[in-house]
Amino acid sequence: MMDCLFCKIVAREIPAKLAFENEHVVAFHDIRPMAPTHVLVIPKKHIVGIGQATEDDVAVLGHVMLAGRLVAEELHLDDGYRLVVNNGENAGQSVFHLHLHVLGGRALGWPPG
Amino acid sequence: MMDCLFCKIVAREIPAKLAFENEHVVAFHDIRPMAPTHVLVIPKKHIVGIGQATEDDVAVLGHVMLAGRLVAEELHLDDGYRLVVNNGENAGQSVFHLHLHVLGGRALGWPPG
Repeated sequence: MMDCLFCKIVAREIPAKLAFENEHVVAFHDIRPMAPTHVLVIPKKHIVGIGQATEDDVAVLGHVMLAGRLVAEELHLDDGYRLVVNNGENAGQSVFHLHLHVLGGRALGWPPG
Repeated sequence: MMDCLFCKIVAREIPAKLAFENEHVVAFHDIRPMAPTHVLVIPKKHIVGIGQATEDDVAVLGHVMLAGRLVAEELHLDDGYRLVVNNGENAGQSVFHLHLHVLGGRALGWPPG
């Protein structure tokens, strides 16, 4: 997707502070962190959001979620972490390339927003 | 897992208000809802948490995430929704069977807890 900010990060056309990468995903630090550690995991494949994901995307979605765990381990979030995916307006989704937030390094309140 | 509350819901040994089911997951309404719609999606397979998931669980994880989307559609969360997975103490994980929260029906603030 030529106009997608996150596709440009995958393609290294826009810089980001990378936290993790494998064949399925890239993870990088959020530029507006909401916790001491706040990383975004994105699939290399362009998927607009979880609301547009299909049965064909099951493996990609699984790799995104597992990468959330791997990032958390890599960054020593041993006291816990929260994974968050926003879809659409009510949830405040702001970039239309599926992304999983990994938040940790502090106590996270409930409800989650 | 004999002592797992959520495995008992999968096995229909404990009642729950079901929202969705397929061969991989069961989804049911949270008994302590934090939004007008608050559903938990759990894999039928017992996985303690995302922190214990492995490469072998990628397909299950993908089905859990996709089911979050299917639940949201089924329950008409057309204005948006948030998917949340907590792991460990800082995030307030309280049941040790992996579960994905689906929250919608109101504006969800940021940060997510």
